[in-house]
Amino acid sequence: MPSNLQSPITNLPHYVIIVAGGSGSRMKSAVPKQFLLLSGKPVLMHTMEAFNGTKSKPEIILVLPSDYHQYWQQLVKEHSFAITHQLVTGGETRFHSVKSGLALIEAEEALVAVHDAVRPLTSQSTIDEAYHCANQHGTAVVAVKSRDSIRQVKNGKSISLMRDEIYLVQTPQTFKASLLRKAYQQPFDPKFTDDASVVEQYGTEIKLTEGDHSNIKITFPEDIAIAELLLSKKPQLF
Amino acid sequence: MPSNLQSPITNLPHYVIIVAGGSGSRMKSAVPKQFLLLSGKPVLMHTMEAFNGTKSKPEIILVLPSDYHQYWQQLVKEHSFAITHQLVTGGETRFHSVKSGLALIEAEEALVAVHDAVRPLTSQSTIDEAYHCANQHGTAVVAVKSRDSIRQVKNGKSISLMRDEIYLVQTPQTFKASLLRKAYQQPFDPKFTDDASVVEQYGTEIKLTEGDHSNIKITFPEDIAIAELLLSKKPQLF
Repeated sequence: MPSNLQSPITNLPHYVIIVAGGSGSRMKSAVPKQFLLLSGKPVLMHTMEAFNGTKSKPEIILVLPSDYHQYWQQLVKEHSFAITHQLVTGGETRFHSVKSGLALIEAEEALVAVHDAVRPLTSQSTIDEAYHCANQHGTAVVAVKSRDSIRQVKNGKSISLMRDEIYLVQTPQTFKASLLRKAYQQPFDPKFTDDASVVEQYGTEIKLTEGDHSNIKITFPEDIAIAELLLSKKPQLF
Repeated sequence: MPSNLQSPITNLPHYVIIVAGGSGSRMKSAVPKQFLLLSGKPVLMHTMEAFNGTKSKPEIILVLPSDYHQYWQQLVKEHSFAITHQLVTGGETRFHSVKSGLALIEAEEALVAVHDAVRPLTSQSTIDEAYHCANQHGTAVVAVKSRDSIRQVKNGKSISLMRDEIYLVQTPQTFKASLLRKAYQQPFDPKFTDDASVVEQYGTEIKLTEGDHSNIKITFPEDIAIAELLLSKKPQLF
């Protein structure tokens, strides 16, 4: 990966669709995890700042369940949050939420990153590199190599997989808008766990770009404390 | 998984072989990671305490490169570390180190856990459950379900795997001694990334037991701080 990436070499408009679907049940928290405070500020604001601080500086489309629109507006006011963004209502699943976000992009061609609201620690270089790769190849999915041995369980039996071949997929997942639109016209399939699986089912090969293990997803209660710790070390780590 | 597991229902002797191979290169540290201080005490001592505090209370066989035997003895003195253990010299790879540890077990049949020195946060219930399962089935490998979507890269192309089928393997990996001995008589193969892969190649099916994501492996500099954080929450988490 080039260490000092040039400014985006494309004139295509850049977007990020930030999806926040979680109802917070796994966090044992009344507040969905994207609104939990991370070093005094909602997780989601850190996430949006990560994108806003890049060379790519994409337009931000935020997809939230309608129940939380008012709450979000209130948080924006409280925290004097000034990053411009469009707010749109999410659907029943992540698939439907991304589709809602995608509908707001008018440009015929663009580079569109899809990102989990609850991944606030994504580095600027990871984001810029993803747009760069998507511009070249049409797809760019951030992933990290597994540190652990991997086993696959089928019909109650486990078999080992070659660890070096296995990647844990993160976000952003970035695509050319024309491709992503076509892929999202497919009927919903429960095996769509992320955008890569949607685009792959459409028949397009997925390019991976290297992420880092610090790009964690806030899923469980201890993750907030870990994220605060990683955030405090961000100047060294990123 | 039974929440209040009975004391081991077997009279077989219990052992744990703790393997510490790392030279510390990935940690940018002169001191191998198993000796780094975690809340004021070397990582390895936390690991040994985790096993010593279980109902199974196994005999501990510690495998260290010969270069570090004296350093370890010095740490034991400094920290007034009182847990009884046998110390043995490790080999060229993890495979050879486990083999060295295994050679110290005289009992014809026993339950033998193999554990990474740099996994200090393993819970007592995980360890006891692993011995219990190995006693019943011959094998018990601690693993957690992947939280992330998974892709497999072959010949430069990535394909998605079913996330629900994928497990990230941790330690302890526990076996009946008779089986483990036979498996370790096979010639070394570079694709042996853990004990499960050795035993699987010998032809025995591997049973997985549920671990938890807090059972982290100290691999990178930020992991020490994360481990300290998890350790401070241990009463709630474990």
